[in-house]
Amino acid sequence: MNSFTVEEYHARITQTKLRMQEQGMDVLLITDPANMNYLSGYDGWSFYVDQMLMIFTDRVQPIWIGRKMDANAAKVTTWLNEENILYYPEDHIHSQEKHPMDFIARVLQDIGVASRRIGLEMASYYFSALAYEKLKVNLPNAKFINASLLVNKVRIIKSDQEIEYIRRAAIIAGIGMNTAIASIQEGVRECDVAANIFRDLVSGTESFGGDYPSIVPLLPAGKNTSTPHLTWTDRQYTNDEVVIIELAGCHRRYHAPMARTLSLGRPSEEVLETSKILVEGLNVAIEAVKPGATCEEVEMAWRSVISKYGIEKDSRMGYSVGIGYPPDWGEHTASIRSGDLTILQPNMTFHMIPGLWFDDFGVEISETIRVTESGCEVLTDFQRELIIKDQIEIAM
Amino acid sequence: MNSFTVEEYHARITQTKLRMQEQGMDVLLITDPANMNYLSGYDGWSFYVDQMLMIFTDRVQPIWIGRKMDANAAKVTTWLNEENILYYPEDHIHSQEKHPMDFIARVLQDIGVASRRIGLEMASYYFSALAYEKLKVNLPNAKFINASLLVNKVRIIKSDQEIEYIRRAAIIAGIGMNTAIASIQEGVRECDVAANIFRDLVSGTESFGGDYPSIVPLLPAGKNTSTPHLTWTDRQYTNDEVVIIELAGCHRRYHAPMARTLSLGRPSEEVLETSKILVEGLNVAIEAVKPGATCEEVEMAWRSVISKYGIEKDSRMGYSVGIGYPPDWGEHTASIRSGDLTILQPNMTFHMIPGLWFDDFGVEISETIRVTESGCEVLTDFQRELIIKDQIEIAM
Repeated sequence: MNSFTVEEYHARITQTKLRMQEQGMDVLLITDPANMNYLSGYDGWSFYVDQMLMIFTDRVQPIWIGRKMDANAAKVTTWLNEENILYYPEDHIHSQEKHPMDFIARVLQDIGVASRRIGLEMASYYFSALAYEKLKVNLPNAKFINASLLVNKVRIIKSDQEIEYIRRAAIIAGIGMNTAIASIQEGVRECDVAANIFRDLVSGTESFGGDYPSIVPLLPAGKNTSTPHLTWTDRQYTNDEVVIIELAGCHRRYHAPMARTLSLGRPSEEVLETSKILVEGLNVAIEAVKPGATCEEVEMAWRSVISKYGIEKDSRMGYSVGIGYPPDWGEHTASIRSGDLTILQPNMTFHMIPGLWFDDFGVEISETIRVTESGCEVLTDFQRELIIKDQIEIAM
Repeated sequence: MNSFTVEEYHARITQTKLRMQEQGMDVLLITDPANMNYLSGYDGWSFYVDQMLMIFTDRVQPIWIGRKMDANAAKVTTWLNEENILYYPEDHIHSQEKHPMDFIARVLQDIGVASRRIGLEMASYYFSALAYEKLKVNLPNAKFINASLLVNKVRIIKSDQEIEYIRRAAIIAGIGMNTAIASIQEGVRECDVAANIFRDLVSGTESFGGDYPSIVPLLPAGKNTSTPHLTWTDRQYTNDEVVIIELAGCHRRYHAPMARTLSLGRPSEEVLETSKILVEGLNVAIEAVKPGATCEEVEMAWRSVISKYGIEKDSRMGYSVGIGYPPDWGEHTASIRSGDLTILQPNMTFHMIPGLWFDDFGVEISETIRVTESGCEVLTDFQRELIIKDQIEIAM
């Protein structure tokens, strides 16, 4: 059932321990579900309760700890021995008196690490401020160190098997985009288009199925294209409007996001022009991707194009992508933006998303790419331009 | 575009302010997206970055603050005046140096509340331990108070308009369940069943569309029914296995969850018996629901049935449900369990989910219910029993 060999998981743990030592940690408490998955294989929709993977520099296997009803999921999905799968009592769930961290602190005491240097993922979505306070109260002698992104930084270079999963995700993304473009037309409801996209993303291909993407398909239309994160409504598409489609294929939790912009009817001059500039900039940025270049250099290539046309963009134009759980498929490490000096290396993967949003419209056209030994491979495969569905032209 | 009248939003804010005063707060910083939606109408998939709704006891309107590209979404989806929609600079996103809370603290200073009593949703998924630390460092003179669940407790009694949305969600849940039961059969892949369910949940009905549920359809099968939160794989269903289907219809972010258990082929005696006990217990619990009863009493009604058969269950058998965003549709307030003395009142809504999980199998059959003026209304509508698809019998 595991997505990778036990050897690959061990290699990831070794890389994690090396970073723990560099940063002076004896213990690392992992609460980011993507990082838990990366190191243990754990996969279940249980991150809405407190759960954790504990890494100890002096133990071979991590310890998984979570809710009793999810411990069986840990047995099914991880490579860990059963004695390393623990659970806290059920009366700790959504309780005003007891907190899972009370129990977890006792486990750490029993193991004998209550006074050690403990890394915490301080910026993890599923490590609440309250959980942090509870740990501090229960472990007054521990030295806590912010370990945010420690594992994320190990994840940034993918193995060949990981790349294979992202390739499959990219194929699924293409299928979803095809369906989106085919479905969107005058009189069709946004929710029905989203439904078709979801079906295709989850079904996948005959050879491999789809997994749920960490973000739902985003479908802003008309004036709402000025803001990228609106989800669908019951509204029907009208002719003469622009629709942005941002979606991701997902396979075994690996993502390949892609965005396209569709014009229903003849696009306005500004949408047409913006799209051309955006594609020109994206192409130049893709050409700038090669091992040894920095993220900042790639962004400068993009910026050189848009500034030629008098456009400024303050948001980043890309970010590292891979394993994800809701609410995000980004890895939160390298960003393609000014000031990011991350050096590109082979098998890094990025979502290059040069969205341009103005007061009353926006355009997004994006690709998921891989840094190769010598340059850049675009993993997503779809016509890289403004898509125009002009029914009048078709009728003629 | 708003789901409710401005008067309804104002009434919710008033209820919130009353609780703030009771708990000695001048300011409340809301980071739970469901609570943000409840008070402002805000709806967008932007909770993966820091964002917030600020409530002040001495101001009429809240302030929304988030990312620049999402401020337009706030203009589209909330009832707030534009001057109350603020954004932080883009270089605060996923940065090692700058944190959105640095900016937010300055806004609070400018408003003149930096030394006031400030409520924080300490247990919110999207208020990280790091965000909390940053606020503390930037506002050394503030008095922080844990305001977890303050707004959730206002949400527990629904208005008639909210009940209407949950009714629609329940209709969508029934459509999804029908499709699930129809789709699951020998040789069909789990991912293709999930795809069909997703399409129906998102498409909704001709009269009203579906929204994305906060949790994806959960489909453990065979031995994996012993653990409830596994998601689908590419595996094909075999004959003679049990499948649990847990899903929710969603409309305008309001949820109606429902679970059923399906036997492909003739079920084992233990699955059949467990299902009967479960339905008997669920029916007795539903009969115990009425205004004035406590959550604990309802759980005792359920417990009295299963203990008759020698079964113990340590997890709760229900919880308050309503608005939700990933990763959860539960409201985290009242639970149908021993020790919960919440008094039931008309228009409270619960997901009654008496799952029974053993070492190598499990059964779930659940309903979403509403407390009425005199008793209980079951909102979901589907045959309340183990569903058996025995192809051999059909062939005879």
